[in-house]
Amino acid sequence: LKIFSLSSNRALAQEVAKVVGLELGKCSVNRFSDGEIQINIEESIRGCDVYVVQSTSDPVNDHLMELLIMIDALKRASAKTINLVMPYYGYARQDRKARAREPITAKLVANLIEIAGATRIINLDLHAPQIQGFFDIPTDHLMGVPILGDYFKTKHFDRDEVVIVSPDHGGVTRARRLADRLKAPIAIIDKRRPRPNVSEVMNIVGNVEGKIAILIDDIIDTAGTITLAANALTEAGAKEVFACCTHPVLSGPAIERIESSNIKELIVTNSIVLPEDKKIDKIKELSVAPLLGEAI
Amino acid sequence: LKIFSLSSNRALAQEVAKVVGLELGKCSVNRFSDGEIQINIEESIRGCDVYVVQSTSDPVNDHLMELLIMIDALKRASAKTINLVMPYYGYARQDRKARAREPITAKLVANLIEIAGATRIINLDLHAPQIQGFFDIPTDHLMGVPILGDYFKTKHFDRDEVVIVSPDHGGVTRARRLADRLKAPIAIIDKRRPRPNVSEVMNIVGNVEGKIAILIDDIIDTAGTITLAANALTEAGAKEVFACCTHPVLSGPAIERIESSNIKELIVTNSIVLPEDKKIDKIKELSVAPLLGEAI
Ligand SMILES: Nc1ncnc2c1ncn2[C@@H]1O[C@H](COP(=O)(O)O)[C@@H](O)[C@H]1O
Ligand SMILES: Nc1ncnc2c1ncn2[C@@H]1O[C@H](COP(=O)(O)O)[C@@H](O)[C@H]1O
Repeated sequence: LKIFSLSSNRALAQEVAKVVGLELGKCSVNRFSDGEIQINIEESIRGCDVYVVQSTSDPVNDHLMELLIMIDALKRASAKTINLVMPYYGYARQDRKARAREPITAKLVANLIEIAGATRIINLDLHAPQIQGFFDIPTDHLMGVPILGDYFKTKHFDRDEVVIVSPDHGGVTRARRLADRLKAPIAIIDKRRPRPNVSEVMNIVGNVEGKIAILIDDIIDTAGTITLAANALTEAGAKEVFACCTHPVLSGPAIERIESSNIKELIVTNSIVLPEDKKIDKIKELSVAPLLGEAI
Repeated sequence: LKIFSLSSNRALAQEVAKVVGLELGKCSVNRFSDGEIQINIEESIRGCDVYVVQSTSDPVNDHLMELLIMIDALKRASAKTINLVMPYYGYARQDRKARAREPITAKLVANLIEIAGATRIINLDLHAPQIQGFFDIPTDHLMGVPILGDYFKTKHFDRDEVVIVSPDHGGVTRARRLADRLKAPIAIIDKRRPRPNVSEVMNIVGNVEGKIAILIDDIIDTAGTITLAANALTEAGAKEVFACCTHPVLSGPAIERIESSNIKELIVTNSIVLPEDKKIDKIKELSVAPLLGEAI
């Protein structure tokens, strides 16, 4: 068994290797002068069960090509199995044709990974669990909820003081799961547009008054949804608002929005590396290394 | 029949469409806030023979993913055939395992293009013609030599004043082809390392003294090979040195090296777009649009 890291999440890969009780395998990822990726695997892997840790986070195309080239090299070097540990699955939101002539890039990515030669894939909180079905190889789908739940347990909130809130209809199952772990009720932000060209109304289904509201989502990208939801919760009488997600994409105005929002604390995992300029006091990072290590 | 352009070579695509007598199809290539590619095909292509013009030049991974996502969208929108016009094939130099545990990225790219759903591919001066065999779909392999040859004919050099030079052993066939068109003899730069850790010696096989030497290569990348070759030719008594190639990658120190070299003129094609800062007086660009248009 060997574990290799590509360039998206070296620290996490290191931690995963430690959990498993191994050193990371030696390989280098460089660029030729013209920007093409050059990968060198610096130890024999013939006949080995190889694990590759890589999230396809921004820059998504570079991280994906690194992964595909690594798989190709491992396959040609006679690895016995090629197992991907892919905590964040880039392009997961392009998972269906919502409009005519749209691509389904999440399925394309699955095809690319398979044709490159991967034999198994381990994911964490896929945007849609249906993405597992885009693969014909074995998939393992891990959940971030227990990690987030354990963190909130350390806060020792009063049990009936807390409410778990889904920021949209699509996330209710996830909210229910966290609520189960914290033995709390749930609420839902019910956005709707009363008439065309009239701005959305945020209605809250469930009781949040006087409560500590914990918003949960899988991905926080530009943080528009989550900060608007947090506002709506305060307006509805919530006394404190926390937010949590598995995948801190945090692109564009996200950090500014979170900084200036009424969100007290945002809890995320290290499925995506937070660059230094996104490490603000409000954001608390939890490691998924123990979870991933267990799945290996 | 519809022709679409992605973002690598819009001007060339426009020209190709004009040669064929069509307008470019409407499609937009954008980025989501997190850097993921979003493609919108803005007209129906159901049942059409679709041509997509895209070189996988720098940024190679972005250009390749654009292409794959476009193919996916076309396939799902029921295009009858999906034909790629790919004047420059990125990763073509990673076409064999030269060392243990190397990937063969040129073959990986072929697999990715096929699994995405392309039904035919048109290339220009592949780094190795064997790359055609990496595909199971029909391939057309066009040659830049006639275009380069026609340009040199307009110079009306004296026939026995010219010698065509290959900068290495691998390029002799290409030099021979250009020489045939110009009815000129060939010479070869024969690099060898007399002993380990002794620098290479550039020996010239063939007569260049008093001649106009025309160096030809498929790709000029950092321009190290070509400028050293040009020096060696001048030292061997060539009276003028021209250089030409199909694919002006021109990365890193290339422009500086060419600028300060004894190369009088460098003739390239528009298979790769020259950004403004690479458009120097010495470089002359020829269009491959008529050649590509004919192949459609
Ligand atoms: N990287 C992205 N950033 C923002 N929106 C996206 C991205 N990828 C896909 N989408 C859009 O998000 C929608 C899916 O999101 P959801 O409804 O939350 O599953 C699709 O209609 C896509 O057009
Ligand atoms: N993008 C690139 N830039 C420079 N060298 C490369 C690149 N891709 C592959 N190579 C190397 O170039 C060699 C092939 O070049 P050639 O011998 O001219 O066919 C291979 O051994 C590769 O390791």
